[in-house]
Amino acid sequence: MFQSFEAKTSPEAGPGRLAALRAEMAREGLAGFIVPRADAHQGEYVAPCDARLAWLTGFTGSAGFCIALGDRAGVFIDGRYRVQVRAEVELGAFTPVNWPEEKPGPWLAAALPQGGRVGFDPWLHTRREIETIEAALKGTGVTLVESANLVDRIWADRPAPPTAPARAHPLEIAGETSAAKRARLAEGLRAAGARAAVLSLSDSIAWLLNIRGADIARNPLMQGFAVLHDDAHLTLFAEGAKVSPALRATLGPEITLRPPEAFAAGLRSLQGPVRVDPASAPVQIARELEEAGVEILWGEDPCILPKAIKNPNEIKGMEAAHLRDGVAMAEFLAWLDAEAPKGGLTEIDVVTALEGFRAATGALIEISFDTICGAGPNGAIVHYRVTEATNRAVTPGEILLVDSGAQYPDGTTDITRTVAVGPVAQEARAPFTRVLKGMIALARARFPRGLAGRDLDALARASLWEAGLDYDHGTGHGVGAALCVHEGPARISRVSEVPLAPGMILSNEPGYYREGAFGIRIENLILVENALPMTGADRRDMLCFRTLSFTPIDRRLILAEMLSAEERAWLDAYHAETLARIGPRVSPATRGWLEAACAPL
Amino acid sequence: MFQSFEAKTSPEAGPGRLAALRAEMAREGLAGFIVPRADAHQGEYVAPCDARLAWLTGFTGSAGFCIALGDRAGVFIDGRYRVQVRAEVELGAFTPVNWPEEKPGPWLAAALPQGGRVGFDPWLHTRREIETIEAALKGTGVTLVESANLVDRIWADRPAPPTAPARAHPLEIAGETSAAKRARLAEGLRAAGARAAVLSLSDSIAWLLNIRGADIARNPLMQGFAVLHDDAHLTLFAEGAKVSPALRATLGPEITLRPPEAFAAGLRSLQGPVRVDPASAPVQIARELEEAGVEILWGEDPCILPKAIKNPNEIKGMEAAHLRDGVAMAEFLAWLDAEAPKGGLTEIDVVTALEGFRAATGALIEISFDTICGAGPNGAIVHYRVTEATNRAVTPGEILLVDSGAQYPDGTTDITRTVAVGPVAQEARAPFTRVLKGMIALARARFPRGLAGRDLDALARASLWEAGLDYDHGTGHGVGAALCVHEGPARISRVSEVPLAPGMILSNEPGYYREGAFGIRIENLILVENALPMTGADRRDMLCFRTLSFTPIDRRLILAEMLSAEERAWLDAYHAETLARIGPRVSPATRGWLEAACAPL
Repeated sequence: MFQSFEAKTSPEAGPGRLAALRAEMAREGLAGFIVPRADAHQGEYVAPCDARLAWLTGFTGSAGFCIALGDRAGVFIDGRYRVQVRAEVELGAFTPVNWPEEKPGPWLAAALPQGGRVGFDPWLHTRREIETIEAALKGTGVTLVESANLVDRIWADRPAPPTAPARAHPLEIAGETSAAKRARLAEGLRAAGARAAVLSLSDSIAWLLNIRGADIARNPLMQGFAVLHDDAHLTLFAEGAKVSPALRATLGPEITLRPPEAFAAGLRSLQGPVRVDPASAPVQIARELEEAGVEILWGEDPCILPKAIKNPNEIKGMEAAHLRDGVAMAEFLAWLDAEAPKGGLTEIDVVTALEGFRAATGALIEISFDTICGAGPNGAIVHYRVTEATNRAVTPGEILLVDSGAQYPDGTTDITRTVAVGPVAQEARAPFTRVLKGMIALARARFPRGLAGRDLDALARASLWEAGLDYDHGTGHGVGAALCVHEGPARISRVSEVPLAPGMILSNEPGYYREGAFGIRIENLILVENALPMTGADRRDMLCFRTLSFTPIDRRLILAEMLSAEERAWLDAYHAETLARIGPRVSPATRGWLEAACAPL
Repeated sequence: MFQSFEAKTSPEAGPGRLAALRAEMAREGLAGFIVPRADAHQGEYVAPCDARLAWLTGFTGSAGFCIALGDRAGVFIDGRYRVQVRAEVELGAFTPVNWPEEKPGPWLAAALPQGGRVGFDPWLHTRREIETIEAALKGTGVTLVESANLVDRIWADRPAPPTAPARAHPLEIAGETSAAKRARLAEGLRAAGARAAVLSLSDSIAWLLNIRGADIARNPLMQGFAVLHDDAHLTLFAEGAKVSPALRATLGPEITLRPPEAFAAGLRSLQGPVRVDPASAPVQIARELEEAGVEILWGEDPCILPKAIKNPNEIKGMEAAHLRDGVAMAEFLAWLDAEAPKGGLTEIDVVTALEGFRAATGALIEISFDTICGAGPNGAIVHYRVTEATNRAVTPGEILLVDSGAQYPDGTTDITRTVAVGPVAQEARAPFTRVLKGMIALARARFPRGLAGRDLDALARASLWEAGLDYDHGTGHGVGAALCVHEGPARISRVSEVPLAPGMILSNEPGYYREGAFGIRIENLILVENALPMTGADRRDMLCFRTLSFTPIDRRLILAEMLSAEERAWLDAYHAETLARIGPRVSPATRGWLEAACAPL
């Protein structure tokens, strides 16, 4: 079982740890110290040794930071965590701050006197982050200063860094050799006048080297740093223990493996200009280069866009992973339909069973994130994660939201279904149908090349808007190919300006949440493709989406009369295709359930 | 008759004038000279004395510029004018350049040797324009230099500047006194730390002073410059002849009137900081301030946003203007339906008749732009303007696109209808219905506060995209209240980032154009409003559009089976409201036609 259900946090320890931190701050003459959730690799998950924010404050969310001052300690959290933070931190010692509405710069300026110095660990913050805070502190006399990590100093029993062995990601799945990827990128570096690029994002390194790791939960990543040289050679800075002799051999002679301790010296020995990403590289990387007089060429991590554009083999792997996952989902939903209406199941039972069905595929490496399983009102908590403390009975008459995904050797999945438990909750049917209409609108969309997710977001929301409804999250995020379930740079949201390109895989997940009552979300993954050319001289070159997820959508929650003929045709075709692809692979017991669930409306 | 049909241009004179210009360039030691379409007020229309581009090259489009060099003269034109330019300029002397694909900076860099100096008139270009070109010239050794206007020097019979008397715009229509507007804006200036703001846009001055003018065609504007002081006083620099004693009295003591010649000295005498708009103010304005040591605070013209957000009286005026215009449109379409099928009508006959019906309202001040009337294939030329040379018979069996508008004392209109002439062109019905679906989608849309036109543009296009179709113009532009028919800052288009706000009036005009065959566009004006609150705690605060134009949409061109129930309901309700509002005001003869045209689908 990958997912655990204990409340991961010990708030009671917070005040004592905060006092110890303040003693260190005093020793260093610092008026404040910033403790971020992020590690040096700015990923969504951190290793236990990097869970400084949770250790200090008790807050376990996937984003946020604490600023400890002498007289207060603000825990900055976004909209997802407003409720959770109050349950996880000692409110006598820590003050939740609504971020990004309240920004650290102004908050510090208001809290500190002229001359106050606030420390931060230059390995844990990006240039962009620090510049934003510093801009807001201009003229206040409050300054940020680089510092040793004071939390690490007081964290006596801090776990050791991960040393999980990495594995080779097979070429038939990766679709392109690391040598070819490095040659492509090196050519781009030369064209941009750079001699090298520093890589600090673990998924960039995993993609570029065709390796996968297990240093952190949920994402198959090996943590390390790398320098890609303009001759396509690459220096990898990582614990030797992570790279077996066999993997070492696979990596080949163009890859030089060096210990993490050698990274700083490695940076200092580079010939400039060196490409560094201001949005993801730790401040310390630029500092090392500057001190050694190496010219910096600020620019995006060169792996980000090529990684997002999946090649035919990666797409084949994602398709296979989605068929496998579709079988697990069908077995799961058939089981749920049989058991849940009897009553007596809890959210934890459901999560446990679902992970079991995925494990039964024999190919489950990890779950791609903690399953979100919200019964009734819990479904309205967008990033709900069930614990023993919050575990709720799955009650007939309610609806259940289950958002889950898997890491398989050939692909990563992410799917949400919202189902009726026993007698159908009538008040949920109209909003469920509007959410479905939005999901179908995006799935059916054709659109001109060059548009960004922002330009399409309204299609998924218009039906909800019509009723005065909306949802407070993006419509879709990028998804990695056997990599991170949340992958940049493209998204489908009001803020996404990155043009969609064939090969990108994103989620299509509109929703609706009625606080205290229920939550609805329907999610499939979609692949950006060139639309088939249409006949007629006036027909434009267009892009479209192809849906990769095949799992029935609960027909009992649909008000058929609210669907247009086209929407109905899409849904019936989707269910027919689901039955055709998944049907032959499910157990005999589930086959009948699937046929009924996939029947035309 | 406001509209004229002669080809406005004399290409044959171009080469001689170009030679004379080159002689002046040589005298000034200039390798090139830029001749823009714009005047010092950067409006869409220019007075005859400012029609330098047309005089020199023959090109009469509403946007573009010429760069004359020793060995070539490029006429830079956007997508609307690729065809027209070739008919209007002497191609032996002038070379059309596809702009903005080809940009003046690189074009100059490629055409000129190191050290080439290119002159421009600092009264006719904005800072942003010049900076963009200069950025592209960096490192090329080619430079831009401010110069006297060499075209004016060789333009012997150049017309005198306009001196049309301006008129007061009544308070019951303006809805807010000039004093109140100036006080509001002055407060904003003080809050921003500015002592004054320079106004060079004619519609800003017209809005702020509640005056209208007749210096240029189509837009009711008086040309001049103004300085708004932070005490709400305003200095207006304009020909005394334009301001009658009566108007002078209406303007009141807080307005100081000075001759245009005094503008430069007026700028130099200001106390800084002075707000200047880099996107609309002539370079020379900043130059005068800089030379006098007056600090410049770059920022948007303070009138632009308040002008775009119409107050209740302005909205009442626009509503009245649209009912009046709706009557003229009904009389026109009834006449067209009776006459056109007989054959024998030409595009010019149609334009003439339409202007006649508008004149018959007794309130027509001007047309708001040259009517676009395209029969058959001419309808596919997006910015087609009929001339004696291009005039085409309106042939039964074809469809006719008519895009027109009026300037009335109380409002400005802009409406497009596409109608079947006699037997219905079957191939046009499917695309017509898709265009209609897009127009209805926007008209029916509810959306959260804070969205920009860009976020809604897809709603108007999705139905066309579905068939691989699209249109190469924006979906909507802002419209002034008894002002310019094209008004910033909000638009509905892929590039519009300005949040929509209640009170803004825009056009809703999706289209489809099949080159060589026909063009389709359906356009109404829409007003941004707060959506009526819906019951239910989960209902969000939303905005919506209210349609202001009431003219039947040709039901013969609609494939009813392609409309959803909601779309059909919207159309029937729209026609019912049109009949209810317009019916009582039309002639008995037209009443019957209108009833039939407004019948449910």
